Amino acid sequence: MNELFIPILLGTARQDRLSEKAARFTHKLFSKRSDVETELLDVRDYLTDRSWAPWQENDMSKKWKEIMARADGLIIVTPEYNHGYPGELKILIDKADTEYAHKPVAFCGVSGGGLGGARVVQQLTEIVRNLSMVSIVPSVYFPHIKTLFNGAGEITDPAYERRLDELFEELLWWATALKNAR
Amino acid sequence: MNELFIPILLGTARQDRLSEKAARFTHKLFSKRSDVETELLDVRDYLTDRSWAPWQENDMSKKWKEIMARADGLIIVTPEYNHGYPGELKILIDKADTEYAHKPVAFCGVSGGGLGGARVVQQLTEIVRNLSMVSIVPSVYFPHIKTLFNGAGEITDPAYERRLDELFEELLWWATALKNAR
Amino acid sequence: MNELFIPILLGTARQDRLSEKAARFTHKLFSKRSDVETELLDVRDYLTDRSWAPWQENDMSKKWKEIMARADGLIIVTPEYNHGYPGELKILIDKADTEYAHKPVAFCGVSGGGLGGARVVQQLTEIVRNLSMVSIVPSVYFPHIKTLFNGAGEITDPAYERRLDELFEELLWWATALKNAR
Amino acid sequence: MNELFIPILLGTARQDRLSEKAARFTHKLFSKRSDVETELLDVRDYLTDRSWAPWQENDMSKKWKEIMARADGLIIVTPEYNHGYPGELKILIDKADTEYAHKPVAFCGVSGGGLGGARVVQQLTEIVRNLSMVSIVPSVYFPHIKTLFNGAGEITDPAYERRLDELFEELLWWATALKNAR
Repeated sequence: MNELFIPILLGTARQDRLSEKAARFTHKLFSKRSDVETELLDVRDYLTDRSWAPWQENDMSKKWKEIMARADGLIIVTPEYNHGYPGELKILIDKADTEYAHKPVAFCGVSGGGLGGARVVQQLTEIVRNLSMVSIVPSVYFPHIKTLFNGAGEITDPAYERRLDELFEELLWWATALKNAR
Repeated sequence: MNELFIPILLGTARQDRLSEKAARFTHKLFSKRSDVETELLDVRDYLTDRSWAPWQENDMSKKWKEIMARADGLIIVTPEYNHGYPGELKILIDKADTEYAHKPVAFCGVSGGGLGGARVVQQLTEIVRNLSMVSIVPSVYFPHIKTLFNGAGEITDPAYERRLDELFEELLWWATALKNAR
Repeated sequence: MNELFIPILLGTARQDRLSEKAARFTHKLFSKRSDVETELLDVRDYLTDRSWAPWQENDMSKKWKEIMARADGLIIVTPEYNHGYPGELKILIDKADTEYAHKPVAFCGVSGGGLGGARVVQQLTEIVRNLSMVSIVPSVYFPHIKTLFNGAGEITDPAYERRLDELFEELLWWATALKNAR
Repeated sequence: MNELFIPILLGTARQDRLSEKAARFTHKLFSKRSDVETELLDVRDYLTDRSWAPWQENDMSKKWKEIMARADGLIIVTPEYNHGYPGELKILIDKADTEYAHKPVAFCGVSGGGLGGARVVQQLTEIVRNLSMVSIVPSVYFPHIKTLFNGAGEITDPAYERRLDELFEELLWWATALKNAR
C-alpha cells in the first residue's frame, strides 16, 4: 500500500496545449515509483462552462477540495503566459484553502521559448506561500516545447529523466517530513 | 474633443465583489477631468460562459482588442487573491497582445486586510512589462475594503481624492508622452 | 535545555535605521519563550569594511555559516528599500549555501509608509526558496515605523504581541517538523 | 554630436566575475552606434571600501547621481545570485532617486545555468518601477556563461548581435520618446 498521494496538475485549458506532453511525461515517470500514488489531473475537468466562475462553490470545486485534502503534496505542470500563470490555473487554486496547508509543491514549467517557464514558477511560489505550502527546488523546465518532444511523443533529451528524479526525491523528502508532523 | 482615451478595468468577476466600490469611486473621479475620456469596463462582460475559454478568439475578445487598440493607457482596479491576481483578469489580459504596446498602466489595489493589494500590483507589473507597457507609480491602495466605504457607498477617508489625483497626473504625463511618440 | 535555536537577523546596516526598534521588540518577545533559544544578529557585524566584498570567504562569512549550520530556522527583520531588499542583507545571505537547507524562515517587514514591507517579503520568498528553505506565513508588518514606537521605545499598538505570537507558533511548528526529519 | 547618453552598468563586484564578458560584449556593440553615446560603468568603482555603506552620501554616490542625472536611459548587465540581484548592485541603485525618473532601463541577464538570469530581471523590474523608470522588453539573456564566450573572449553564438540590436532599437525608441517629453 502506498502511504503518500501526490497528484500532478496540468495547469492550462488552452486548446492544443503543448504542456500536456510535459505533464504526461512527468506522470508516466512518477507512476513508476512504488513509494507514492499519483494521478494526472486536468484543470479543464474542474473549470467547465458551468463551474469556471471564480470563488463559486460547486460540484467541481468540492471535488478539488477533496483531492487536495487527501493529497500529501502536489506537482503543477504549467506553461508561462506573458511571464505569469494561466488564469484558469489561478481560478482553480483559489477554489480551495486550508486543504493545502503544510504540504510541498513542485513545479514543472513549460515554454515555447528558451526559458522554460522560469518566471511563472516565481509567481506561483508567492501564491502557494500564502496557502502555507512549501515551494521546493529543483523545478524542471521544459523550454522549446514544440521540438522537445518528437512526433511519437517521446522526449528528445534524455537528461529529463534524471532531472525529474531529483525533483521527485526532494518532493518526497518534504512530503514525508510534513506528513509525519501534520 | 478629448485627445486621450483611458478606460478603467474592474478585474474581478467574483460575486458580491467589494472592489466594485473602489472601481466606481475611481471612475467617478477620473470622469470629472476634461482632458481625458474614460469608461468603466467590467471583466465580467468579457468572460461570459461562452467566452471565458483561455486564448480563444470570439466576439468578446475581439471587442477587448478593439478597446485596447484605441486606448492610450489603462487603469486596472483589482483585488488581491492569495497574493496574486484574479484568474479571470489574467485570462482577459492574455486575450490581446500588440494592442497594449507603448502605453502606460496604473494600478488600484483592493484588499480585505491592511495591505491594499500591494502584492498583486507587483505581480501584474511583471505581466504588463511583457506587453511593452510601462507600469507607473504611484498606485492607490484600498485596504480594509469592508469599512473604507460607508453604507451610502461614500469613501470615509478624504485623502483618496488627492492620492488618485496624483495617480491621474502621472498617468496622463506618460500617456501624452507615448501618444506623441507612437 | 532548549532544543531549537532560531536567531533573528536585522537586515539593514543603514545609519539611524528604524528597523532596529522592530528587531529589538521581536527579539524581546521571542526571548521569553522557554521552548527556543534565540539571539539578535546584526548584518553590520558581518559586513564590516574588511568583509563586505560579495562572495568572498573571510572570518565573518565563516562565522555566519557556523551560525546558520547550527540554526533550526531564522527570523529576518528587514526594511523595504525601493520595493526590494537592502543590498547588504543580500550580500550576507549569499555568503552561505547548504547551511540553510530544510529550515523555515519567517519575515518581519518594516516601512516608513503604510504597507509595512509587504513587497520585500515577496522578493525574499523567491530568494530563500533557492536555499531550500520554507518561507512561512504569517509575516508581521511594521508600517509607519517613525510613529509605531513611542519615545520610550515601546510599541503603541498592543496587537503586535498577538501577531508575533502567531508567527512564532507557526515557525516553531515548521522548525520542529523539519528538525525531526533532517 | 550624440543626443542620447545611455551608460551600461556591470552589476557585480564579485572576484573573477564572468558577467564582465557579457558587459564588454554589449558595450562593444552599443558603441558602434552613431545615434547614442555610451560608457561602461562598473559597480566596483562606486562601492569601494570607503563608500559601500548603504544610503551614505559620499564622493562616489555623488558621481553616480551626476551620471544618472545626465543619462537618458540605462542598460544593466547583471548575474543572478540565488534568483535575485547582487547586493552591491542594489546598494548602488539605492544611492540615487529622482535622477532615474522617466527614463527607460534594459536588462542583460547572466547565469552559469541555462536560464540566463530570467529571474533577476523580474525582481529588478519591480525595483526600477519605484524609481519611475520603464523596464523594457526584450531583455537579452546570457546562459551557460562559462562556455558562451571562447578563450579569445569572443561570443560563440552569432544570434546575440541580432538580439542586442533588437534591445537597442526598443531602448532608443523609449529614450527618445521620454527625452522629448521630459
